[in-house]
Amino acid sequence: MKTAAILGVTGYTGEELVRLLSRHPEVELVAATSENENGKKLGDLYPPFPRFRDLTICTAEQALQQAVDLVFLCLPAIESSRWGKFFLDRGSRVIDLGADFRFSTASAYEAWYGTSHPFPELLEQAVYGLPEWRRQEIRTARLIGNPGCYPTAALLALLPFVQAGWVAEEPVLVDAKSGVSGAGKTPTKTTHYVEANENVNAYKPGRSHRHVGEIDQELNRHSQKPLQVVFTPHLVPQTRGLYASVYFKLRSAHSRTELNDLLRQRYEAEPFIRIVDPQLPATRMALHSNFCFLAAEAVKDTSYAAVFSAIDNLGKGAAGQAVQNMNLMFGFPETMGLC
Amino acid sequence: MKTAAILGVTGYTGEELVRLLSRHPEVELVAATSENENGKKLGDLYPPFPRFRDLTICTAEQALQQAVDLVFLCLPAIESSRWGKFFLDRGSRVIDLGADFRFSTASAYEAWYGTSHPFPELLEQAVYGLPEWRRQEIRTARLIGNPGCYPTAALLALLPFVQAGWVAEEPVLVDAKSGVSGAGKTPTKTTHYVEANENVNAYKPGRSHRHVGEIDQELNRHSQKPLQVVFTPHLVPQTRGLYASVYFKLRSAHSRTELNDLLRQRYEAEPFIRIVDPQLPATRMALHSNFCFLAAEAVKDTSYAAVFSAIDNLGKGAAGQAVQNMNLMFGFPETMGLC
Amino acid sequence: MKTAAILGVTGYTGEELVRLLSRHPEVELVAATSENENGKKLGDLYPPFPRFRDLTICTAEQALQQAVDLVFLCLPAIESSRWGKFFLDRGSRVIDLGADFRFSTASAYEAWYGTSHPFPELLEQAVYGLPEWRRQEIRTARLIGNPGCYPTAALLALLPFVQAGWVAEEPVLVDAKSGVSGAGKTPTKTTHYVEANENVNAYKPGRSHRHVGEIDQELNRHSQKPLQVVFTPHLVPQTRGLYASVYFKLRSAHSRTELNDLLRQRYEAEPFIRIVDPQLPATRMALHSNFCFLAAEAVKDTSYAAVFSAIDNLGKGAAGQAVQNMNLMFGFPETMGLC
Amino acid sequence: MKTAAILGVTGYTGEELVRLLSRHPEVELVAATSENENGKKLGDLYPPFPRFRDLTICTAEQALQQAVDLVFLCLPAIESSRWGKFFLDRGSRVIDLGADFRFSTASAYEAWYGTSHPFPELLEQAVYGLPEWRRQEIRTARLIGNPGCYPTAALLALLPFVQAGWVAEEPVLVDAKSGVSGAGKTPTKTTHYVEANENVNAYKPGRSHRHVGEIDQELNRHSQKPLQVVFTPHLVPQTRGLYASVYFKLRSAHSRTELNDLLRQRYEAEPFIRIVDPQLPATRMALHSNFCFLAAEAVKDTSYAAVFSAIDNLGKGAAGQAVQNMNLMFGFPETMGLC
Repeated sequence: MKTAAILGVTGYTGEELVRLLSRHPEVELVAATSENENGKKLGDLYPPFPRFRDLTICTAEQALQQAVDLVFLCLPAIESSRWGKFFLDRGSRVIDLGADFRFSTASAYEAWYGTSHPFPELLEQAVYGLPEWRRQEIRTARLIGNPGCYPTAALLALLPFVQAGWVAEEPVLVDAKSGVSGAGKTPTKTTHYVEANENVNAYKPGRSHRHVGEIDQELNRHSQKPLQVVFTPHLVPQTRGLYASVYFKLRSAHSRTELNDLLRQRYEAEPFIRIVDPQLPATRMALHSNFCFLAAEAVKDTSYAAVFSAIDNLGKGAAGQAVQNMNLMFGFPETMGLC
Repeated sequence: MKTAAILGVTGYTGEELVRLLSRHPEVELVAATSENENGKKLGDLYPPFPRFRDLTICTAEQALQQAVDLVFLCLPAIESSRWGKFFLDRGSRVIDLGADFRFSTASAYEAWYGTSHPFPELLEQAVYGLPEWRRQEIRTARLIGNPGCYPTAALLALLPFVQAGWVAEEPVLVDAKSGVSGAGKTPTKTTHYVEANENVNAYKPGRSHRHVGEIDQELNRHSQKPLQVVFTPHLVPQTRGLYASVYFKLRSAHSRTELNDLLRQRYEAEPFIRIVDPQLPATRMALHSNFCFLAAEAVKDTSYAAVFSAIDNLGKGAAGQAVQNMNLMFGFPETMGLC
Repeated sequence: MKTAAILGVTGYTGEELVRLLSRHPEVELVAATSENENGKKLGDLYPPFPRFRDLTICTAEQALQQAVDLVFLCLPAIESSRWGKFFLDRGSRVIDLGADFRFSTASAYEAWYGTSHPFPELLEQAVYGLPEWRRQEIRTARLIGNPGCYPTAALLALLPFVQAGWVAEEPVLVDAKSGVSGAGKTPTKTTHYVEANENVNAYKPGRSHRHVGEIDQELNRHSQKPLQVVFTPHLVPQTRGLYASVYFKLRSAHSRTELNDLLRQRYEAEPFIRIVDPQLPATRMALHSNFCFLAAEAVKDTSYAAVFSAIDNLGKGAAGQAVQNMNLMFGFPETMGLC
Repeated sequence: MKTAAILGVTGYTGEELVRLLSRHPEVELVAATSENENGKKLGDLYPPFPRFRDLTICTAEQALQQAVDLVFLCLPAIESSRWGKFFLDRGSRVIDLGADFRFSTASAYEAWYGTSHPFPELLEQAVYGLPEWRRQEIRTARLIGNPGCYPTAALLALLPFVQAGWVAEEPVLVDAKSGVSGAGKTPTKTTHYVEANENVNAYKPGRSHRHVGEIDQELNRHSQKPLQVVFTPHLVPQTRGLYASVYFKLRSAHSRTELNDLLRQRYEAEPFIRIVDPQLPATRMALHSNFCFLAAEAVKDTSYAAVFSAIDNLGKGAAGQAVQNMNLMFGFPETMGLC
């Protein structure tokens, strides 16, 4: 039995981690932190998950006193770096669900997050935790930058085509739609029920959302020529679920069958990827799961391909993927606790 | 006081027409038809609209016995043509909310609807009822093809740039999101609450939806070179509201301000168009109205523009636009009964 | 043309008043106040309502400098009293959409709102603005306490039976369900989309919600013996719409037909009440309208009656009813601007 | 490892059983039937549940050829009886998620379901599968009538007070609210997204819903004097979740604390019941779980108690409870696969 801690247990990703770890047969949650709910029992916050109900929520400072095999960070930017460093120094492995360890270079981090990285030396050992594309490095990593929800959906749809050299030219276009839990738990005008219900709107369009940097970086890791995305996220009236509709120009003509066959070949052995063609993905398929559903379409009378990708933003887009990474790091079966 | 009839009053567009005509000071609804609800009072179907509550629903055959100034057709394809022809021959003006009179040529109709047009000679006199782009012809038309919901949102966003010659090359990309009322009133698996709620999915992607033909036709009417769209509609969990996110390559660089200024200049005098930049449109802004909300963005580090468009699919996307067309045909103030 | 002002135009009832007055042919909005949005144009806040788009939002202090025929108060408790007094002294009529003028006595106000009433002398002239039960007094009133949303739905269902002496004994039971707009515009944990979506919960159950005092007061005004309610409000995942399910013991046996006939007779001439039996009311019927839909049921094998009542909480439950009251006070047709 | 079959796997309860059995470590699904989807793989119907993806859906006739330890029936009334009988005769244990085996007598079944029971002799051995109140009989039962969703929520709230003799008189009042998945998977006007969204309505009010018979029967099993309910179900716009608000007159005065203490004492050892007082239950607490959340309130100034109960209608209200019953019948830990 391995031990784990969650730093920042009161947000939606923290809650989802509690749900998932409650079902995990080989991991024990030994610490869960919150500066505000410090002293309460975990069972008071999350009545439906009885396994860890008697765990007393503590501060991050207190959690650091314990020896834990692995720490999940669900903290604001910079805070993550700080606590990640402390726990690494104590010998714990670290999976950061925020953005502090997703970039390869401190300059990229600074460009997209507007602040210098406090521990640039850690970026070298950090691995971008997308198991379908970095599995070997994740197994031996001590520090994981867990991918953002939008990048996860977009990259899983795009990378097979990028790697195969089928993308003719930039930009690649990603039009994404996310449920409101992606906007976090803090009550704001945007997350007010009356504003979000019966409403769709784009936000941070083009290349203004921070996830653009992350998508660009990972596309270019697998591309032989530079690629950049045009990326527009939209808020849609649902709690969970994220949909990415991806469009790009093909280098040479391919049928719908060929496009989907490429996806099927690339992801054949993947436990959490399903190619649903001739259906199209739907976020409902992925709800409360760690799966990503994909299908591609050749746009007739054009040289364009469209690829559609559906995940649960709190599952494969956050906590589910973090548990998948944990399983790899501990040498457990990759699907343990996730199916 | 002018008289109007609604053929096919039981669907969502028929219901919305009843709501709008209930508030119209210069039009009297004198006939409303349904083959299934024939004999009932309109007030039994739609309790909240008392003005026409005592109107007895009749068959289309019976409606034809009355003299009416204008007929709204909310009927299946081909049925629309048939009844449109009958009423035109009786001297009524006709607004078809279906697709039978949206195409300029019978061959285009046949290409997209898979059946030959029963009255190709009527297509010559039919006017595509997008007032912001065809106002003069609508005023004197006897037969209007009321635009589809997706084409309305997409064309209002695109045409200013197409007309100004700012679009560098095809394809133009339209990623659209619609509420479930756009799928019609017949209960199906797709419209079941449990399937549609907490779900987003693409359908008929690329160039497979019938509205592609309509968008292509109208873009090319105002373009100096051939243009075609890549168009993917998505279903989102809300009753009403349609959002179009439009992307295209610019012929030469333009700032966000320049893009929005072009929209503002083109639509300055339009009563139902609002440029909301520096905000972005949201479908909630347009709910239960005949307005279209627009804003444009220059995608940094690329030569691409993004334009966002929000309408109510039953308002500007169907019944509202039909009443706007009626106002023009009758010489009424264009906003009568719509603000 | 009469003039009106809205004090507190940024909340949901203020917004709904703007929407309704935009369609009113005999009233001009001459002032709209907000301490926070002071200086903006009304059209920037509410783009879809163009009629008053150029009105500049001002402070309550500034609004007081103008002569207005009628003022709508959408303000916090006590604030309402204060500004109501100022405007009454200036000769304006006042409709308070809050609770400050709903109670007949200062002691009742204090009992339910926990603070002493600042102008108890005004309570004598204030009229409880439920037109179906106080029409004559409303016509000549200078000060109206516009009923709460829950009391409106409950009283319209109950009062015919109370007045007819058909209620055998207390308590009368009211189980009510409201959309989230009833919880106001301030972002809170309760109104966060993720908390409210896919959720139903009771709150302030039994006799702990402030609307209990209001319902009790009005029931007893029309009852020959003392009556009190057991009242539990619930929050349901929708923006608008309020449903009250009312249960009481009958003094003597009555069939469903007799129960509904009593409702029909009492409300026969009412423009905004519809008895939908043999259907049951649904909040969707009332959406965006000033109607109340009612139906009654005799519970078989018992001596109990159930009455169901559906309104739009922002329509008949707030702004719609306020406009109905205004129409009565100005001698306009009661339905003007509301159908 | 035990073996199980699901008869009628395509409805919402069948789907939920597949989800739950996918996580069960001691049960293998060996047959899943559907007359319409016969021949497909289970993984094509339900992509997110990979464990049984290769199971080929067969007919009930074919399933009967296999030896299975336990059969879940998700079939229409009467069909359940017929297949239940066949499988019992073959030596399988049977859990019927429909109503055919919920009544103790054939006359009660006929009174509520309007048709005579085909195998009245089976009713004697059938056990009403509410584990918190019939655990010992369930352990040894061969045939279980799994409770309805509304009765589960209502009975768990009421029975402690009924058993303790605290209920003064009938009727007990149950006002319940259910998500749309409770209405089944067949597309109808009621389940159309546009009709169900932004809508609340009562249906089958008073004593006209079939679950009344079931609630009455079980209340009277534990009551010393006859009791009947007034029960009104409502449809609310959410996929899953059921809320029961229960009101009754107390024989003698009790404080809120005393009411909740009775609940706590009665359910202290229950793994799936949580008393959340001083909070109130919310359906969101129970979502995707087998838990029931309860809290009671003493209505001040009256002799009435209110008890609130929240479950997931597909969890504790159907498939979750069925798996709980299966665990008891097989001698497994009661929470296996459910936490």
